Amino acid sequence: MPRIRETGIYDSRLPTGPLNAITDVGGVSVGHFTLIQGDGAWKPGRGPFRTGVTLIIPQPGNLYQEKVPAAVHTINGFGKVAGFEQVRELGTIETPIALTGTLNVPRVADALMTLAIEENPHIGIGFASSGRRGYASVNPVVGETSDGYLSDIQARPVGEMEVRAALAAAYNGPVAEGVVGAGAGTSCYGWKGGIGSASRVLSPAEGGFTVGVLVQTNFGAPEELVIAGVPAGRTLQPPAAPAIAEPTGSSIMMVLATNAPLDSRQLGRLARRAAFGLARTGSTCHTSSGDFVIAFCTAYRVADRPAEIVVSRPCLAAEQSVLNALFLAAVEGVEEAIYNSLFMAHTVTGRDGNTRYALPVDEVIALVGRQRSTGAAKGD
Amino acid sequence: MPRIRETGIYDSRLPTGPLNAITDVGGVSVGHFTLIQGDGAWKPGRGPFRTGVTLIIPQPGNLYQEKVPAAVHTINGFGKVAGFEQVRELGTIETPIALTGTLNVPRVADALMTLAIEENPHIGIGFASSGRRGYASVNPVVGETSDGYLSDIQARPVGEMEVRAALAAAYNGPVAEGVVGAGAGTSCYGWKGGIGSASRVLSPAEGGFTVGVLVQTNFGAPEELVIAGVPAGRTLQPPAAPAIAEPTGSSIMMVLATNAPLDSRQLGRLARRAAFGLARTGSTCHTSSGDFVIAFCTAYRVADRPAEIVVSRPCLAAEQSVLNALFLAAVEGVEEAIYNSLFMAHTVTGRDGNTRYALPVDEVIALVGRQRSTGAAKGD
Amino acid sequence: MPRIRETGIYDSRLPTGPLNAITDVGGVSVGHFTLIQGDGAWKPGRGPFRTGVTLIIPQPGNLYQEKVPAAVHTINGFGKVAGFEQVRELGTIETPIALTGTLNVPRVADALMTLAIEENPHIGIGFASSGRRGYASVNPVVGETSDGYLSDIQARPVGEMEVRAALAAAYNGPVAEGVVGAGAGTSCYGWKGGIGSASRVLSPAEGGFTVGVLVQTNFGAPEELVIAGVPAGRTLQPPAAPAIAEPTGSSIMMVLATNAPLDSRQLGRLARRAAFGLARTGSTCHTSSGDFVIAFCTAYRVADRPAEIVVSRPCLAAEQSVLNALFLAAVEGVEEAIYNSLFMAHTVTGRDGNTRYALPVDEVIALVGRQRSTGAAKGD
Amino acid sequence: MPRIRETGIYDSRLPTGPLNAITDVGGVSVGHFTLIQGDGAWKPGRGPFRTGVTLIIPQPGNLYQEKVPAAVHTINGFGKVAGFEQVRELGTIETPIALTGTLNVPRVADALMTLAIEENPHIGIGFASSGRRGYASVNPVVGETSDGYLSDIQARPVGEMEVRAALAAAYNGPVAEGVVGAGAGTSCYGWKGGIGSASRVLSPAEGGFTVGVLVQTNFGAPEELVIAGVPAGRTLQPPAAPAIAEPTGSSIMMVLATNAPLDSRQLGRLARRAAFGLARTGSTCHTSSGDFVIAFCTAYRVADRPAEIVVSRPCLAAEQSVLNALFLAAVEGVEEAIYNSLFMAHTVTGRDGNTRYALPVDEVIALVGRQRSTGAAKGD
Repeated sequence: MPRIRETGIYDSRLPTGPLNAITDVGGVSVGHFTLIQGDGAWKPGRGPFRTGVTLIIPQPGNLYQEKVPAAVHTINGFGKVAGFEQVRELGTIETPIALTGTLNVPRVADALMTLAIEENPHIGIGFASSGRRGYASVNPVVGETSDGYLSDIQARPVGEMEVRAALAAAYNGPVAEGVVGAGAGTSCYGWKGGIGSASRVLSPAEGGFTVGVLVQTNFGAPEELVIAGVPAGRTLQPPAAPAIAEPTGSSIMMVLATNAPLDSRQLGRLARRAAFGLARTGSTCHTSSGDFVIAFCTAYRVADRPAEIVVSRPCLAAEQSVLNALFLAAVEGVEEAIYNSLFMAHTVTGRDGNTRYALPVDEVIALVGRQRSTGAAKGD
Repeated sequence: MPRIRETGIYDSRLPTGPLNAITDVGGVSVGHFTLIQGDGAWKPGRGPFRTGVTLIIPQPGNLYQEKVPAAVHTINGFGKVAGFEQVRELGTIETPIALTGTLNVPRVADALMTLAIEENPHIGIGFASSGRRGYASVNPVVGETSDGYLSDIQARPVGEMEVRAALAAAYNGPVAEGVVGAGAGTSCYGWKGGIGSASRVLSPAEGGFTVGVLVQTNFGAPEELVIAGVPAGRTLQPPAAPAIAEPTGSSIMMVLATNAPLDSRQLGRLARRAAFGLARTGSTCHTSSGDFVIAFCTAYRVADRPAEIVVSRPCLAAEQSVLNALFLAAVEGVEEAIYNSLFMAHTVTGRDGNTRYALPVDEVIALVGRQRSTGAAKGD
Repeated sequence: MPRIRETGIYDSRLPTGPLNAITDVGGVSVGHFTLIQGDGAWKPGRGPFRTGVTLIIPQPGNLYQEKVPAAVHTINGFGKVAGFEQVRELGTIETPIALTGTLNVPRVADALMTLAIEENPHIGIGFASSGRRGYASVNPVVGETSDGYLSDIQARPVGEMEVRAALAAAYNGPVAEGVVGAGAGTSCYGWKGGIGSASRVLSPAEGGFTVGVLVQTNFGAPEELVIAGVPAGRTLQPPAAPAIAEPTGSSIMMVLATNAPLDSRQLGRLARRAAFGLARTGSTCHTSSGDFVIAFCTAYRVADRPAEIVVSRPCLAAEQSVLNALFLAAVEGVEEAIYNSLFMAHTVTGRDGNTRYALPVDEVIALVGRQRSTGAAKGD
Repeated sequence: MPRIRETGIYDSRLPTGPLNAITDVGGVSVGHFTLIQGDGAWKPGRGPFRTGVTLIIPQPGNLYQEKVPAAVHTINGFGKVAGFEQVRELGTIETPIALTGTLNVPRVADALMTLAIEENPHIGIGFASSGRRGYASVNPVVGETSDGYLSDIQARPVGEMEVRAALAAAYNGPVAEGVVGAGAGTSCYGWKGGIGSASRVLSPAEGGFTVGVLVQTNFGAPEELVIAGVPAGRTLQPPAAPAIAEPTGSSIMMVLATNAPLDSRQLGRLARRAAFGLARTGSTCHTSSGDFVIAFCTAYRVADRPAEIVVSRPCLAAEQSVLNALFLAAVEGVEEAIYNSLFMAHTVTGRDGNTRYALPVDEVIALVGRQRSTGAAKGD
C-alpha cells in the first residue's frame, strides 16, 4: 500500500519533511496500540474489537513540569474530547495527547492521570515554593472518533494497559498509518480510514519551520470524497453499501505540531486552518461529526514552577507573512494526512461481519490520473 | 447548623421557592454519595478519603431520548470538566449532571456512560429510522473541584458503584448541603465548603418562573470572604492556618436550573450571570480556579429522534424584561447557595490530619449582624 | 458573461432555486449602489473610485420592530465589521445588512442608523410600555472587504447618500453580480472579483427549505484558485502580474439566508459551514484576510416589544438529518457564489492605472472541461 | 467633590499608584472632549447635548507602526463597539481607544481612521517590503454607552473635530473624572455617572507591576447600588425618580492597562476579571447592557512590519502566582473606578429637563461609615 504521494497523483506547493509525518517536527514521537480481537456477532461488552489508542508525545522529558504551548479548536463539537477547557485557558498541554474510540475517552484520560502521577508523585500532595502554594492536578488531553461500526464500543476496552503499551511503542521515526492504533476501527467517506500523517517544510526565507500533522479519520459519506481535486466519490462506491452508510459518530481528530515559535493565540490561528484542509477532501462537516483540532509548538517549554517572574521567549513576529506559509503547510498537511489514512488502510471486517473496504487505490490512481493528466496542471 | 437565611443576616430582593433549593424547579432531583473513609497519614492510592459524587438529574424519564436544553459557560478554565464541547454545539444535556473530585472525572464519566448504555442498549449498535442512520454515542457531563487537601485524590475512588449509589439516593425534595456528596472534601475561603443550594421565584407579572441553583464550593482565600456585603474575611481567619493556604485547585461548579422556556442562547446568557453571584462573596477568580457554569431548562424536551422535521416550542419573548429578573434570580441564587455551602458544613479532618474548620456561624452572625443592624439596609 | 452553471463546467448535488440567488429565499431583497468615478493617478481623498455598497434586506417591513433571527461567525478576524457583538448576544439583526469597502464601514453604519431613526423616531427618546422602560439604540450590521488596489480608500466615499441609493434599488428578483455595489473594486485570486450569489433547495423529504448565499469576494492568490476541483491557478495567471499581488486586505463576506426555522444556535452552525465552501475554491485563509459570515432566518420574526412573555416558535427538530442537508446547501452555495463573482466580473482599471482582469472564462471552460470530460464524474 | 478613597469609607488590599489612575501605567495618556450645549426641549438632531469623547492613548509614538498587545472581552454584548474582531484575531491595538455615546461610534471610528491615515499616509496605497505586499487598512477601537436620557443621541454630534480636540487635550497626569468626555451624559445606578479611574501596584515580590483602570459608567438600577459592601441602594434613591428609571442602553466600558508583560491570552484572562469588580458595586448585568472590557499591555510593542521573523519578548512566566495579584488589582481597580465615576460627578440636567443627580456623597459617607465603623473590618 503506497502513500498517496508515492502514487504520483498528488503533489503540493510546499515540500514535505524527510518522513512526511508529524515526527518531522523534532522531538515529537508517536505510539500506537491496536486492539483487534474476536470475530462474528456482537456480544455487548465482550467484542469483537477493532479499536486502539494513539499517543502523540509533543516533546521528550517531563511534560508536566515543562509543558508545551498549545491551542485547541472545535470545528463541530459533537464529540467527547477531554481537556479542552484548560488548554483554552492556560495555552499549554502537560500530558501526551491520546486519540482513541469515543467511549474509551474516560478510561484513557484516567490512564493518562495514572502516568502523570507516577512521574509526578507530588500531584495531590500540595506544594509550597516560590510564593506559590497548592495542590497539583493534571489535565489529560484526549481526542476521539467512534469506531462503532466495526467494534464493540459499549465495552470500552482501551484503558491503562493499552495506554502503557502505546507509550512503550512510541518513537520519533516513521509513523504507522491506516489500520493502527486509534484508527483500527474507523471509517472515512464510507471506506476504511484510520491514522494518517504528513508534514511540510517552509523555505529558509520563511524561517525554514516544519509543520507536522496526524489525523484520525472517521467522517464523510462515500459520495463526498474528493481526491486531489477529483470528485472520486461520484464514481467510486464501496463494493457493498453498508446497511448504515452514514455514521452519526463520524468525526475527525487533527493534531498539528510545529517548531515555529508560536504563542497560544497564533497556534489557535493555525488550528483554525485545519478545516480548509479537511474541506479539500470533500467534507461538509456533518452535524453529528466531532471535528476537533489540537495544535502545539515545540520551540519553547512552559515551566510548571518557573524560577523567574518574567522570562524571555521567542515569538514569531512576522505574523503577516511567515504565518501565511504556516497556514498553507497546515492546510496541505491535513489534506495529505487524510489521504494517507485512506491509502494506507486495508479492508477490515469487524463486529457482526460489518466490513469497511480499503479504498481501491488502483482505481483511484486511474480515475484521478486520467483526469489530471489531460490538463496542464500537475498538482494539488 | 442553620442555612444563612434562617440566621437573619441575609435576605434578598426576590423570594425563594418553598425549599430554597434547585429542586424547587419541578422535576429536578439531586442525589449524593459521600465517601468518608480512613484517617491519618496519606497512603497514596489507599486514602484517607473525603470525597464523593453529586448528581443533578434535570428531569425524570429517559434523558437520552428526551434531552433538556442547556448551555455551559467557563469563567476560568483551569479544570477538567467533561462534556462541554457537545453541549456548546447541540445545546442539550442527555445524562445526569455529575459533580465530583477533580481526578475522579474520568471514572464518573465512564460510569454515566455505563448507565446510559443500560437504559439505551442501542448505543453503539447503530440504527436506521426516518432517513437518519448512525451509531449513537453519549455525552456525559461532569464537573469537578479538587478535594486534595483532605482526600487522597491520586486514588480516584469514585466510580460506577458510587455513581449508582448517588442515583439511587436522588430525590426531588430538600437538598442535603455542606459536607455531602461532591462537597465532602472541598474548601471555601479557607473554611470547610461543600454543597449549597438556593432558589428564587419571579413574580406572576414576570411569568412566575423559578431559578434553582446548586454549587460545589472549593475556592477563595480566607481574607477574601464577604458575607452579605460585610468583608468578614478581614477579621475571621481559620483557627489554624493550614500550611498551604491557597489551593491551586480552588474551583467552583455552579449548576442553574429554570422552568422558564429559554433556548440554548438564552441559557448561556443566564449562565454568564453566575459570575456576578460568585463575586458577591468576595472571589477574584484565581488563575488556577476552575469556575464553570452549567444551565438547563425544564420547560420542554428535545427528542433524540424527532418524529417531525419542525416542531413548535415555547420561547421567552420578553428578553428585554423578564430575562433581567431571571438574571437577578441567578445572581442571588448563586450567592446564597455559596453561603449555604459554608453555613451547612461542619469541620472535617482528612488525610495527614489536614483540617478544614466549619465557618463559626455565631461569630459570623455577630459580625455581620452588628454591621448591618446599624444601617437602614436590611439585606442583600 | 455567463454564470458558471451556464457554462456546463459546474454542477452540484443539490438543485438551485429559480434564480440561483439569495433572493430565492422569500422576502429577501438586494440593492446595490456602484461608485465608479475618475481615472488615472490617485489623488488621496479625491479618487479615482471603484467602490460601492450592497444591501441585503432580510425581510420586508420594519426590521427594527420585527427583527430576524441571526448569527455571525468569524473565520479570520482581520477586518472591521460592525455590529457583530450584539448579534452574538441577542441572536437578531435589526437593520439591513450592508457590505462595502473597508474604510467606508463607519460611514455606512452611520447611514444605517439614520435610516433606522427615520423609521423609528422613538430611538433615543425612551419609552415605557409593558413594564419595560428604556432608550432604544440600534445596531447596524456592516461587512467589508478592501478595494484599495483599484479605489481611493482613504476618501471613504460611501455614506448616507449611497446607502439610500442602494436601498431604493433593492428588489427581490435576480441579483446583479460581478462589478457592482460592494464588489465594484474588489479582487479574487488575483482576478477581478465582486458580488456573487447562488441558492440551493432541499428535497420535500428534507423540508423543502431554501438556502441563499451572497458573497463579496476579495481574497486569495492567483496560484491558489481551484474551479470545480481543477487547480486552475496552476496554469492561469493574470496577464500582467500586478506589482502588489497579494493584498493584505484580502477578505470575503458571506451572507447566508434560509427559510428553515433555525434558532440562533443553529444559524451559527450553518454559518460555520461557509468555510467549507470557501475552501473548495482554493483559499487557505490568509492571515490578513477578514473572512466573516452572517446568517439569518426568515421563518419567524422577533418582536422588539413583544406583547406576551412567552411565544411559540417553529424550531427545526431534525437537527441530526435535515441540518446536514442545509449544511451541504450552504457549502455548495458559497462555492458557486464565489465562482459567480469571478465569472460575472469584467476587467476594471482603477486608480493609478491598476487593473484587475476578468477571469478568462473561455480558457477556464477549456481547462476545466478538458479535465473533467475525461473522467466519469460530472460534478463538483 | 472627593474621590471615594479620600472620604475614608473605602480602602483596598492593594495600594494605589501615585495618581490612582490609569495614567499610573507609564506612557498612558487620557484626553477628554466634553460637549455640553443647549437646554430645554429635545429638538431631534439639534440638541441639547450632554455627550463627548474620551481617548485612552496606550503609548506614545506611532501606534500603527508599533502596536500594543491587547485583548477584548464581552461580558454582555448589547452594544455597538468597533474593532473587537481584529483585536481578538491579532491581539493588538493600533489606534487610540475611544469611548463615546452609543450612536456616535461610527463617526468617532471614522475620525480615528482619518487620524491614522494622516500619520500613516501609505494606508490604502499598498506597499512591498520584506517579502510582504499589501494594502494597509486600520482598525479603530471604539467603546460606547448610551447617554440618551440627557442628550440628543439621534444627532450623533461627536466626530472628527471632537476627537481631535480630545487628542490635543491628552496628557499623562491626573485623569479628570465624573461629568467629562464620554461620561458627560451617562448615568450609573440611577445617579449621574461618568468617567472614573483607579490603579493598583503590586509588591516588588510580585514584580511591582501596575494595573490602571478607566471606566465609562452607564448602568444599573438605583436599588442595586452597593458601596464598599454596603447596599446603599436600599435606602438611597435619586430625589425625583425619573419617569424612565432603567435605561435599556445601560452599559459600562472598562479599559485596563498594565506594564506587566502579558501576551494576548493573558490579557484576556485579566480582562475577564473586570466582571468581578463590576459585580462588587451591585450590578447584575442587565440584558440590555453593553458591558465590555479592553485590556492592553505596555511592556513591549508589536511592529507592523517587523525586520526579523522571530523576536524575543518578555513573558510573565509566573502565571500561577503573580497573575493572581494582577487579577486582584483589576478587580479592585474596576470597583474603585466605578465609585470614582459616581463620587466625582455633579448633577446634570439635560434634554427635556431630564436630570441625573449627583450621588449625595455626605449621605453615602454617613451611611457606609456608620455600618462599617461598627465592625472590626476596615476595608472593602
